[in-house]
Amino acid sequence: MSELQRPVRVLIHGATGRMGQALLRLASKGADGESVVVAAVSRTPGQRVVDGVPQFAARELNGVPEFDVAIDFSLPQAFDAILASCVARGAALVSGTTGLEPRQLEALQEASARIPVLSAANFSLGVAVLGDLVERAAAALREWDCDIIESHHVHKKDMPSGTALALGESAGQGGANPRYVALRAGDIVGEHAVQFTGLGERIELIHRAGNRDIFARGALHAAARLAGREPGRYQLRDVL
Amino acid sequence: MSELQRPVRVLIHGATGRMGQALLRLASKGADGESVVVAAVSRTPGQRVVDGVPQFAARELNGVPEFDVAIDFSLPQAFDAILASCVARGAALVSGTTGLEPRQLEALQEASARIPVLSAANFSLGVAVLGDLVERAAAALREWDCDIIESHHVHKKDMPSGTALALGESAGQGGANPRYVALRAGDIVGEHAVQFTGLGERIELIHRAGNRDIFARGALHAAARLAGREPGRYQLRDVL
Amino acid sequence: MSELQRPVRVLIHGATGRMGQALLRLASKGADGESVVVAAVSRTPGQRVVDGVPQFAARELNGVPEFDVAIDFSLPQAFDAILASCVARGAALVSGTTGLEPRQLEALQEASARIPVLSAANFSLGVAVLGDLVERAAAALREWDCDIIESHHVHKKDMPSGTALALGESAGQGGANPRYVALRAGDIVGEHAVQFTGLGERIELIHRAGNRDIFARGALHAAARLAGREPGRYQLRDVL
Amino acid sequence: MSELQRPVRVLIHGATGRMGQALLRLASKGADGESVVVAAVSRTPGQRVVDGVPQFAARELNGVPEFDVAIDFSLPQAFDAILASCVARGAALVSGTTGLEPRQLEALQEASARIPVLSAANFSLGVAVLGDLVERAAAALREWDCDIIESHHVHKKDMPSGTALALGESAGQGGANPRYVALRAGDIVGEHAVQFTGLGERIELIHRAGNRDIFARGALHAAARLAGREPGRYQLRDVL
Repeated sequence: MSELQRPVRVLIHGATGRMGQALLRLASKGADGESVVVAAVSRTPGQRVVDGVPQFAARELNGVPEFDVAIDFSLPQAFDAILASCVARGAALVSGTTGLEPRQLEALQEASARIPVLSAANFSLGVAVLGDLVERAAAALREWDCDIIESHHVHKKDMPSGTALALGESAGQGGANPRYVALRAGDIVGEHAVQFTGLGERIELIHRAGNRDIFARGALHAAARLAGREPGRYQLRDVL
Repeated sequence: MSELQRPVRVLIHGATGRMGQALLRLASKGADGESVVVAAVSRTPGQRVVDGVPQFAARELNGVPEFDVAIDFSLPQAFDAILASCVARGAALVSGTTGLEPRQLEALQEASARIPVLSAANFSLGVAVLGDLVERAAAALREWDCDIIESHHVHKKDMPSGTALALGESAGQGGANPRYVALRAGDIVGEHAVQFTGLGERIELIHRAGNRDIFARGALHAAARLAGREPGRYQLRDVL
Repeated sequence: MSELQRPVRVLIHGATGRMGQALLRLASKGADGESVVVAAVSRTPGQRVVDGVPQFAARELNGVPEFDVAIDFSLPQAFDAILASCVARGAALVSGTTGLEPRQLEALQEASARIPVLSAANFSLGVAVLGDLVERAAAALREWDCDIIESHHVHKKDMPSGTALALGESAGQGGANPRYVALRAGDIVGEHAVQFTGLGERIELIHRAGNRDIFARGALHAAARLAGREPGRYQLRDVL
Repeated sequence: MSELQRPVRVLIHGATGRMGQALLRLASKGADGESVVVAAVSRTPGQRVVDGVPQFAARELNGVPEFDVAIDFSLPQAFDAILASCVARGAALVSGTTGLEPRQLEALQEASARIPVLSAANFSLGVAVLGDLVERAAAALREWDCDIIESHHVHKKDMPSGTALALGESAGQGGANPRYVALRAGDIVGEHAVQFTGLGERIELIHRAGNRDIFARGALHAAARLAGREPGRYQLRDVL
C-alpha cells in the first residue's frame, strides 16, 4: 500500500509511446492494484488509448484532474512542462525520459526540494535489487576480480548498456573495479551478469529480463510508492 | 590485519585429517599472511605433517605453547578437550567439526560467554557472502518464487546439502519459502544456485566452488579475524 | 526455398486458437517469405482473423482452395477431418495437436504412406537442434552422468515437460540414462538444460525460449520444407 | 579396449614437466586401465618420477624398450628426436607440444604417411565433443548469431584461448561467423561457452574444466585409442 493509504492517482505523460502504451495496458489490468490512471497525456491524443482513461493533449496539461504522481516517458522537449506541472500541483514525478539537457537535470534537482522525484534508466525491480546485491558483494569481496557481462538485441546501440554502467557504479561503491563485456545477439531483451571471481570459487549475480512489461510494472510500482513521500531525490531501490 | 595487530598464533586441531592437512599446507604457504601455526594436534602425530610446525598428540594438549585461536576439524569425541583448552587459555575457537551432540552444542554456547567462538558447516567466504545476498534478495522480492539448486559429486550422501539448507534458512529470514533441487553428478566440488523468479524477470545468485582449498582458506581467514575479539557467538559473515 | 520452387500454399487448421492466431500473424508478416496462407479453417470463423486470408468453417473443409500443406493446431475431435482432407488432396500435414487417440496415431501412420506427415510436441527449431546435439553428446560421453533440468511457468502441469522427455529419449538413443529435474516458477516460457558431467569437466547444452512465436515460426518453417516431399513420416530435424 | 587387444605400451616424453607428471600419476593409478607406461623420458631424469616406471634421459632415447605410442608434452627442441623415434619404431605419436616450427609441422605431416599421429592444443574429451556439437549446431542455425565466450585464470596470456579459436573454426566449418569474448579472472581452469542466438530463442553450449587432470586423462585415452591404427593424421574427435 502507498504512503497515501488509498489508490494513488497517476498521470501518464507520453501516453502514446511504447512505454506509455505498456503503462496504460498494465494499469488498466490492475497490474499492481495500488493505482488508478486519471489522465493520459500525449502530444497527439487523437486515438483513444484505453477505454475509460481520460485523454489530454500536452497543451492541455493545466486542465488535467488532480493527480498524486506523474509517470513520464516522453521526450526532452516535453519534460519541462510535466516537471512544472508536478511542482505546481505538489505531485511526485517518476521519469524514465533519457537525453535530458544539463539545465533540465538541474531543474529536476531543484524541484526535488519541493516534490519527491525519481529518475532512472531501468525500472525493473530485479535490476534495482541486483544493484544493491552487487554493492554488498563488492564490499565483501574486495580482492576478487569483478566482471560485468551484458547481452542485448542487435539493435541496441550503446555499449555497454546504461544498466551495466549503473551496476558497475554499484560495484565501484563497494570497492570493485569492474571490467565490462557487451554482447549483441538476436532479440535478447536484456541480461546482466556480475561475476566475482576469487581463488577456487566464484559468485555470479545474474538478471534476465524476459519482456519489456517489467519496466512498465516497475515504474507503476515506483509511482505508487513515491506518491505522498517527503520531497527529495529518490532511487528505485529506495521505494522497493 | 587481525584485532591483535600482530600475526595470530594458530593451533590446528585434527591436523592429520583432510581439512587439517589442507590448513597446514595453506598456512605454511602463508596463504593469508596473517597467522602462524604454533601447534598441530592430532591423535597420532607420528608423521611429521609440515616442516617447522611442532606436533603434539591430543593427550598432550595441556603442554602446547600459547595460541590465540584453535581451528578444529576433528571428531565429536575430541571436541570437549579442545573446547576446554580454549576456555582455559582464553583463546578463540573456530570449529568445523560436525555431528556434535546436544550437550556439546550447549557447552559451546556456554563457552561463548568467555571466549569468541565460531562454528560453521561451510567455511567458503563466497558462500558466506551468498547467504547475506540471498537474505536481502528474499526480503526485497517477497512475491517472487524462490528455488535453490545444488550440485555435488556422486559420493555426497546428504540431500539437499547442509549449505543449501543454510542458504534456504537465509532466504527464509528474508521471507521466502524456497524449494530445493539436488543434483549428484561426476566429481563436482559444489555449486549452489538460488533463483528468484518474478513475472518477466529472474535473478540468479550462484556460487561455484572449484576446489576444497577455499574451505581451509576461509577457516584460516576466520581464525585470524576472530582472535582477540570480544567473547561471543560469531557467524562467518561477522568476520568477513 | 521449398521443394516446390515457389511459395508454398498453406492451410491453417485451428485458426482461432492461440497457436493458430500466432501462425496467421507471423505468416501475414511474411515471417519466412516462403509461404502464403490460402485458407484459415476453424470451427467458428465468425471473426475475420487476418485481413486478406479467406476463412472457412470446419464443415466447409471440402470447399477450400488448393493447398500444399496443412498446419494443424486443433483438437483431437477435429483431427480426422484435416487428415482425410490432406490425403484426398495429396497435401502434406504438419500437426501439433496433442492428445490424439491410438486409432488416430495409427491413421496418421497409414497416411504417411501417401503423403508427407510431421507431428511434434515442440516446433522450436532450437529444441530440434538441441535434440540432435544431445544424442551425439550422449553417444560420445557414455560414462558421464546425464541430467536434464527444465524450467517452466507455474501454470504448466506436466512434469517433466514433454520436451524434456523427448530430449531424454534423444539422450537414451545415444546411450545415456538421464535423470530429470523440473522447476515451476514465475512465467518462464521454457528452458531446457542437458548436462553431461564427467571427472573434472562438464558439458551443458541449454535451450532458452524467450516467447511463444518461436513455436509458430518453427511450424511455418517446417510446413514450407515439408511440402512437395516424398510421402513418409518426418521429424522436425529432418526438415531443418 | 585398444585396437591392439592388449594393454598399450606407452612412452611419456617430457616426463618431468607439469603434464608429464600428471600423465605418470594418472597412468600409475590405472586411470584408464588400457595402458602401461614402459618408459618416462626427460632431459634430466635424476629424480625418480614414479615407482616402477623406468626412466631414461632424452639422449638415451634409442635404448628405451618397445612401445606402441609416445605421448609428447615437451619442447620444440626435443620434438625432432621423439618423432624420429616413433617413425623408426613404427609407434604412434600423440603430441601436445606447442610452438613447433613450420619445418617441424611439415615433418609431422610427412610422418603421418608412416605412423598414426595426433597433435592437439586441448586434450579434454569434453572440448573435443563440444567442437563436434558446435559444428553441427552452426550448420543447422546459419541465420543465428554466434558468440564464443571463454574464461581463464589471470595468468593466461593468449586471448582468445587456442581452444576458443579451435571452437570458432568448428563453428566456421558449420557456416557461422563467431565473435569472441575473453575473460581473465581468478584461477579459473577454463570455461568455453558457444552461444547461438535466434529470434526468441537461444542455444548455449558450455564446457567447464574443473582441473587439469582432464587434459592428461584425455591424452592417455587418445594414446590408447591411437596405437595400432592405420598411419595418418588424426584429430582427438576421431579417437573418441
